[in-house]
Amino acid sequence: MLAEIRGLNEECGIFGVWGHEDASQLAYYGLHSLQHRGQEGTGIVATDGEKLKGIKGEGLVSEIFTQEAIKELNGKAAIGHVRYATAGGGGYENVQPLLFHFQSGSMALAHNGNLVNATALKSQLEAQGSIFQTSSDTEVLAHLIRRGGFAAFKERVKNALTMIKGAYAFLILTETELMVALDPNGMRPLSLGKLGDAYVVASETCAFDVVGAEFIRDILPGELLIIDDNGFRSEMFSVASNIAMCTMEYVYFSRPDSNINGINVHTARKNLGKRLALEAPIEADVVTGVPDSSISAAIGYAEATGIPYELGLIKNRYVGRTFIQPSQSLREQGVKMKLSAVRGVVEGKRVIMVDDSIVRGTTSRRIVTMLREAGATEVHVLISSPPIKNPCFYGIDTSTKEELIASKYSVEELREIIGADSLIFLSTEGMIDAIGRTDDGENRGHCLACFTGKYPTEIYPNADHPYEKV
Amino acid sequence: MLAEIRGLNEECGIFGVWGHEDASQLAYYGLHSLQHRGQEGTGIVATDGEKLKGIKGEGLVSEIFTQEAIKELNGKAAIGHVRYATAGGGGYENVQPLLFHFQSGSMALAHNGNLVNATALKSQLEAQGSIFQTSSDTEVLAHLIRRGGFAAFKERVKNALTMIKGAYAFLILTETELMVALDPNGMRPLSLGKLGDAYVVASETCAFDVVGAEFIRDILPGELLIIDDNGFRSEMFSVASNIAMCTMEYVYFSRPDSNINGINVHTARKNLGKRLALEAPIEADVVTGVPDSSISAAIGYAEATGIPYELGLIKNRYVGRTFIQPSQSLREQGVKMKLSAVRGVVEGKRVIMVDDSIVRGTTSRRIVTMLREAGATEVHVLISSPPIKNPCFYGIDTSTKEELIASKYSVEELREIIGADSLIFLSTEGMIDAIGRTDDGENRGHCLACFTGKYPTEIYPNADHPYEKV
Amino acid sequence: MLAEIRGLNEECGIFGVWGHEDASQLAYYGLHSLQHRGQEGTGIVATDGEKLKGIKGEGLVSEIFTQEAIKELNGKAAIGHVRYATAGGGGYENVQPLLFHFQSGSMALAHNGNLVNATALKSQLEAQGSIFQTSSDTEVLAHLIRRGGFAAFKERVKNALTMIKGAYAFLILTETELMVALDPNGMRPLSLGKLGDAYVVASETCAFDVVGAEFIRDILPGELLIIDDNGFRSEMFSVASNIAMCTMEYVYFSRPDSNINGINVHTARKNLGKRLALEAPIEADVVTGVPDSSISAAIGYAEATGIPYELGLIKNRYVGRTFIQPSQSLREQGVKMKLSAVRGVVEGKRVIMVDDSIVRGTTSRRIVTMLREAGATEVHVLISSPPIKNPCFYGIDTSTKEELIASKYSVEELREIIGADSLIFLSTEGMIDAIGRTDDGENRGHCLACFTGKYPTEIYPNADHPYEKV
Amino acid sequence: MLAEIRGLNEECGIFGVWGHEDASQLAYYGLHSLQHRGQEGTGIVATDGEKLKGIKGEGLVSEIFTQEAIKELNGKAAIGHVRYATAGGGGYENVQPLLFHFQSGSMALAHNGNLVNATALKSQLEAQGSIFQTSSDTEVLAHLIRRGGFAAFKERVKNALTMIKGAYAFLILTETELMVALDPNGMRPLSLGKLGDAYVVASETCAFDVVGAEFIRDILPGELLIIDDNGFRSEMFSVASNIAMCTMEYVYFSRPDSNINGINVHTARKNLGKRLALEAPIEADVVTGVPDSSISAAIGYAEATGIPYELGLIKNRYVGRTFIQPSQSLREQGVKMKLSAVRGVVEGKRVIMVDDSIVRGTTSRRIVTMLREAGATEVHVLISSPPIKNPCFYGIDTSTKEELIASKYSVEELREIIGADSLIFLSTEGMIDAIGRTDDGENRGHCLACFTGKYPTEIYPNADHPYEKV
Repeated sequence: MLAEIRGLNEECGIFGVWGHEDASQLAYYGLHSLQHRGQEGTGIVATDGEKLKGIKGEGLVSEIFTQEAIKELNGKAAIGHVRYATAGGGGYENVQPLLFHFQSGSMALAHNGNLVNATALKSQLEAQGSIFQTSSDTEVLAHLIRRGGFAAFKERVKNALTMIKGAYAFLILTETELMVALDPNGMRPLSLGKLGDAYVVASETCAFDVVGAEFIRDILPGELLIIDDNGFRSEMFSVASNIAMCTMEYVYFSRPDSNINGINVHTARKNLGKRLALEAPIEADVVTGVPDSSISAAIGYAEATGIPYELGLIKNRYVGRTFIQPSQSLREQGVKMKLSAVRGVVEGKRVIMVDDSIVRGTTSRRIVTMLREAGATEVHVLISSPPIKNPCFYGIDTSTKEELIASKYSVEELREIIGADSLIFLSTEGMIDAIGRTDDGENRGHCLACFTGKYPTEIYPNADHPYEKV
Repeated sequence: MLAEIRGLNEECGIFGVWGHEDASQLAYYGLHSLQHRGQEGTGIVATDGEKLKGIKGEGLVSEIFTQEAIKELNGKAAIGHVRYATAGGGGYENVQPLLFHFQSGSMALAHNGNLVNATALKSQLEAQGSIFQTSSDTEVLAHLIRRGGFAAFKERVKNALTMIKGAYAFLILTETELMVALDPNGMRPLSLGKLGDAYVVASETCAFDVVGAEFIRDILPGELLIIDDNGFRSEMFSVASNIAMCTMEYVYFSRPDSNINGINVHTARKNLGKRLALEAPIEADVVTGVPDSSISAAIGYAEATGIPYELGLIKNRYVGRTFIQPSQSLREQGVKMKLSAVRGVVEGKRVIMVDDSIVRGTTSRRIVTMLREAGATEVHVLISSPPIKNPCFYGIDTSTKEELIASKYSVEELREIIGADSLIFLSTEGMIDAIGRTDDGENRGHCLACFTGKYPTEIYPNADHPYEKV
Repeated sequence: MLAEIRGLNEECGIFGVWGHEDASQLAYYGLHSLQHRGQEGTGIVATDGEKLKGIKGEGLVSEIFTQEAIKELNGKAAIGHVRYATAGGGGYENVQPLLFHFQSGSMALAHNGNLVNATALKSQLEAQGSIFQTSSDTEVLAHLIRRGGFAAFKERVKNALTMIKGAYAFLILTETELMVALDPNGMRPLSLGKLGDAYVVASETCAFDVVGAEFIRDILPGELLIIDDNGFRSEMFSVASNIAMCTMEYVYFSRPDSNINGINVHTARKNLGKRLALEAPIEADVVTGVPDSSISAAIGYAEATGIPYELGLIKNRYVGRTFIQPSQSLREQGVKMKLSAVRGVVEGKRVIMVDDSIVRGTTSRRIVTMLREAGATEVHVLISSPPIKNPCFYGIDTSTKEELIASKYSVEELREIIGADSLIFLSTEGMIDAIGRTDDGENRGHCLACFTGKYPTEIYPNADHPYEKV
Repeated sequence: MLAEIRGLNEECGIFGVWGHEDASQLAYYGLHSLQHRGQEGTGIVATDGEKLKGIKGEGLVSEIFTQEAIKELNGKAAIGHVRYATAGGGGYENVQPLLFHFQSGSMALAHNGNLVNATALKSQLEAQGSIFQTSSDTEVLAHLIRRGGFAAFKERVKNALTMIKGAYAFLILTETELMVALDPNGMRPLSLGKLGDAYVVASETCAFDVVGAEFIRDILPGELLIIDDNGFRSEMFSVASNIAMCTMEYVYFSRPDSNINGINVHTARKNLGKRLALEAPIEADVVTGVPDSSISAAIGYAEATGIPYELGLIKNRYVGRTFIQPSQSLREQGVKMKLSAVRGVVEGKRVIMVDDSIVRGTTSRRIVTMLREAGATEVHVLISSPPIKNPCFYGIDTSTKEELIASKYSVEELREIIGADSLIFLSTEGMIDAIGRTDDGENRGHCLACFTGKYPTEIYPNADHPYEKV
């Protein structure tokens, strides 16, 4: 269930374009299509080759950028960012891209991911006199680049990249070039596209469709791509090793119309549902999915089993930041907010409810109750991923094992807690098979850390990450 | 396709509650669940039995009402309104409920529908010295009631109701009662529910689910229901005749989790899709629906034919009022906004695209093109309703037959215009059967005017309605 | 002291222009110069000869009107209003001008003053079926005009004017003319000016200076002036009788650069100060005035006595609506807000503090204390008008005799209450002489009701005016 | 004339408090009383001894801080800033106090003045890897402090202060202390006060009066004052030399109720007017001052000569940032905005107009014309300071000698340009005598650079300061 796991994970979305006269506008539409990756804040920095200008704010893409704002951001290149939550908390100053002006030029950075050694690097830099303006780990890279002495800019960027650890996809914009970097484990999706003579980069390919760009290829783990007026050239700043694309991108985070490493997300999810049908064939009258992220898996399950897929749960589209929460008393009287069960569909029926994951369990319990109150005679909960038992260090600061309900209870206990007639998780094998990503041996190319506790990188225990490596 | 036909029709949503200490909060959640019926403006008027207070504004429910606003609207009863477009144009003053203060008390009105003789009545009232503060036809009813002389309030309301013609569902709130009226043809949905000791009224039953209320019954055509601290009592101000519930409520307008006259909307739509499978069996690889209103029909078609249902089209959820439209040049380069085709799903496939209606045809043409550009080898368009050939006078001011593409072209011409491989509309018989509403003889209980040109009421040609009765 | 008495009185400012291509802009600047007459709300209605358009809001002229707003209000004529407080309370709908649209045309009204028989007229109109949208007494005139049957518009306006009683200056704008009316007692200032070929009307002549217009003459009591494309013509709707210009306009309300009936306000105030020097010669070291309205009188006193005028009190200019009031604890620690005493000027000095009036006495006491705390050895309070002992019915609803401290205590008691070493009020004779307005016999042309209790019009005791005529 | 010279100079106002439970509220009122020193932006940073929190924004004190904001800024100490224009332009990030968070604690800075070697220092710091987030010269001090190695904080601050040159008054807040520093020439006013057990610091003593604090003493040139829970202690980081308080603080910038070095500003201005009466006795009918800053001098002139002081010019109080400028055409038709001449006062009179300075001359010409158009028969312009012939490097980046009209023309030429009957500037000797500041030998303790071209510090010609030392 998207909303719930989001409390756990802090993904972002980034978009860049070089060589188009409407660069900022394209960034606007690109970011807009990546809005599901982050609704807390957004910004665009553009360059006309002479200087860098930026606009950012806390809110949605459609709220922050006015027609006038986009016009002011004229130029041939731009990078943008949508932000979910942050390492270091909220606040205007943490909204990205971060923009730095020097007497010798400017530089902007946009980052998706989380650095695991940011705290240590920051301590060192501050001891040397650096002043940080944000609590974002992104700023660490900027300081590392600026501290790089008299080497050429590209060398300083490459050196800086070798010092940071964790999951990251970076865009760096200067007056003369757009640099694109992906961490050596390739933990975040990042793709390159082409739009006429311009190049575009985005966290998800759905952004290419929206701006009319053509997909070229995915950015490689450990690759630094430099795009300028002469086209693009690629360098490796690290040998790719232990490829570990975040599995959750397929399971719930990315948009169904995006392709990650050539695999369509909707299709992957439908396959997760079909695989569930194999692993967990349940006798029931209707299949329903928790909107929005579990619809595809539910349809896959219905198709494989022949049980009709119905809209048993419906989501209210207009819940915004300013929505008034119902009082406890009204909640008890049955006031619902975001999700309601459709009585006309579930009454007197045995219902299979497909969801993508269980984090704290509270949402699942609430939905099961809702379905029963709407007249479902049985509620079977099928989860299209394995139990999440371990924290993620590639996008989360505070969550602990204690918060992950599956780390504390057996599946049977969990079933009882959420009040379902049955509860079945997809197997790890089943999940990987269904996603269908090419196997490359032992590691298989997926980050499965939240399921297995095996982390693809070192983890640095410290104030920010109070949990030791499992 | 929802967005398109909305240009044609001006529905609204109304919600009322009597006898609950959190009346305004319930109205807030109720209106929120009716938000799909109108996003231009919203208001709530509440009473504590002593006076009427109201708050309204142009925007979404979640934007207009703050926690403080709802607190100010304390009291035991409230009515609310969400507004789509208006007879008489936009503007703050036209946002409903309309609230009138007199030295002897106050009165608030909320209206869903359109009066066909509003202009004539207004002329007469102004000649007698009435001053109208809005251009809304709703205000006409208020003046008719106030002009009613020394009769009791209820009699004045009943007399006023006999003077207005058209489609209407009215809520009238005073310090002592909540009145509920439905036009004699029953053209708009309006239901009564119960929440503990309180009564609620709403345009759609989904509002009952959201506030935890229990459905009692639908309001009858020609009925005036009076709710006060003693419960409710019913009177008929007109003999119900020529029952004509708007078919489009089933086809695209209502929420899938609502029941209209006992029929679940999602189920009705799925049946429309299944009936399409009978009337228009096409050989294809995938079925896709135009989100959001055609998803259910597409799933029904897929279920009946065995062709897999896929997310071939995806809608961006975050397009708000302030969204920047792409320039013509960017549009031509392929920048999309609201809807995109999913290449990973449709590429190399024969695609069946199910939509709910065609109004101007431009949206259909755009989607067909989009699907082809994403690699669909064939695009078959199936419409889950008959061609719309006639204007609607029960919620529209300006649209003309010329704007309705189906009134000018044959289906084959239309197919060519939108660029589809095939185009098939559901038959009127098929539609009515699929909806499954109880037959009551000749008229069958549906308003089919936009398909057949047979209007259930008189039509008054005048400046506002330049078209004669067909 | 301006702020204090304002609680008592509700003046407004009005401005009109006919025949200028930048009519709304002129209204903007004119209203801006009248801003001291009301800061709660403002509006402009303009006409291009075809229709009337208006913009209004709660706030200052510079806050409500943007460049775009003024552009939208294009046309050749406009009327505008700044509002202080209102008969009937605040609220957007009460902000003027009131704008009414009829099928046969439109009409806008702006009003300065207060009707004493509004309640009675409203009762009658509602009984006949009229619906009032505001609680403003201005709307009564609109209904009276509309009820006027089939007579010509001008006749209906004149008939309506004969039915209303009290103090009023009205502007009425239609597509074809601008009507200007002043009550038969001439209780409010209202002047006519010329700017090129255009005519302007304003509550104060300072508005003429600001827009570069030339003063022509004052509007006469009982006069209806009709301005259209052919120039202006005058009719009397009532015989002027018992002329009674509000004395307080000279004493504190109008701007010092305005002339009322040919007398400059600053000069009148300086003369009030000189007269005070005759009536109340005090031995002291410095003279200071309570800003802003008492500065002129203080300078006059200093000039007449030879005691140096100093800035002993200073006002903070930037106190807006949103200013945070200091907590009680901070107040006690000496936190000041709007006014401070200048220690460098008053320390060790015998101070004469000139103020324009005493209403509740609290402000005077506060200032005296402030001066003493800043080191003044003596504080002598001189008031440039007589004691206010009676409520004003020409601009006030709720204030009672009890609130007027001078109606309850002798001057000596008052002196003790405010803690001054001496307290002297100007005599009524002295005030009238100093203002220097031409005597026209018995009545002398001033409204002195708040000092003498002799009201120039009938007073209608009722719910709104609970006090009988004194 | 205040508005005009402000284009030339960029003063700011600062306020600090340590040891009061309502520290932020006091800062709010203190800044409010310093609002005349800067209206572009404002901020407050507070500490509860554990962390530093800040709120800032572009606008007035009363606009930026809400009740909630002040509550959030709870704690025992706070510093605040009001900003006029900036070295380095506008923008949110340049609004002060600047707030820096380090892993080891936080630091906030507020600065009034201008550093003449900021550019050189910044170049050096950037070459060493520092990243500047603002274009404000204030940030330079922060970096210098942070680069100070392992020395104690106080030593690092003192070292940093010895590296910066120019005019400055600094407040530095940490969790444990409030540091206060004034440049060795003492070019900016800065005073220390006491409020119960708390200490307050402010640019002007008027802030003490507003918050109820008692003046203790002025901060000394070259002094570093450290305030903490144990009281305050003073250290000198530089030998005070060449004391040079900005003369313009007395002439127009400070509030009349402030005392600078023990001299009341209103009294100083009145003395400037009296001295003008000696140096420039003119035969005339009325004396008027250009509001607000020249009123005191005009009153002094009137008192000394016996010519009556009148309100010949009036200023509209409600001109805010959003005020719409009149079009060229309306200007030509005589539309005025901020200042108008009072016909009732000047018509047919010989007028003496007292102003504080002439910068570009355009305002003076405009006022002279205005007075003549209002009927003045003669207009004599008396300036209460000598001609400004040289740019100021202690608060200005861009102005050039060319912009200073007095650097290009003789007084007689100037008189003709502004269209006055006579034009007389006060002599430098006269100005210094009138201000009455204690003489300390040759230098006399005033900065007279803009009059004499003799700068009290080195001037560093560079990109920011393109003018060589004169």
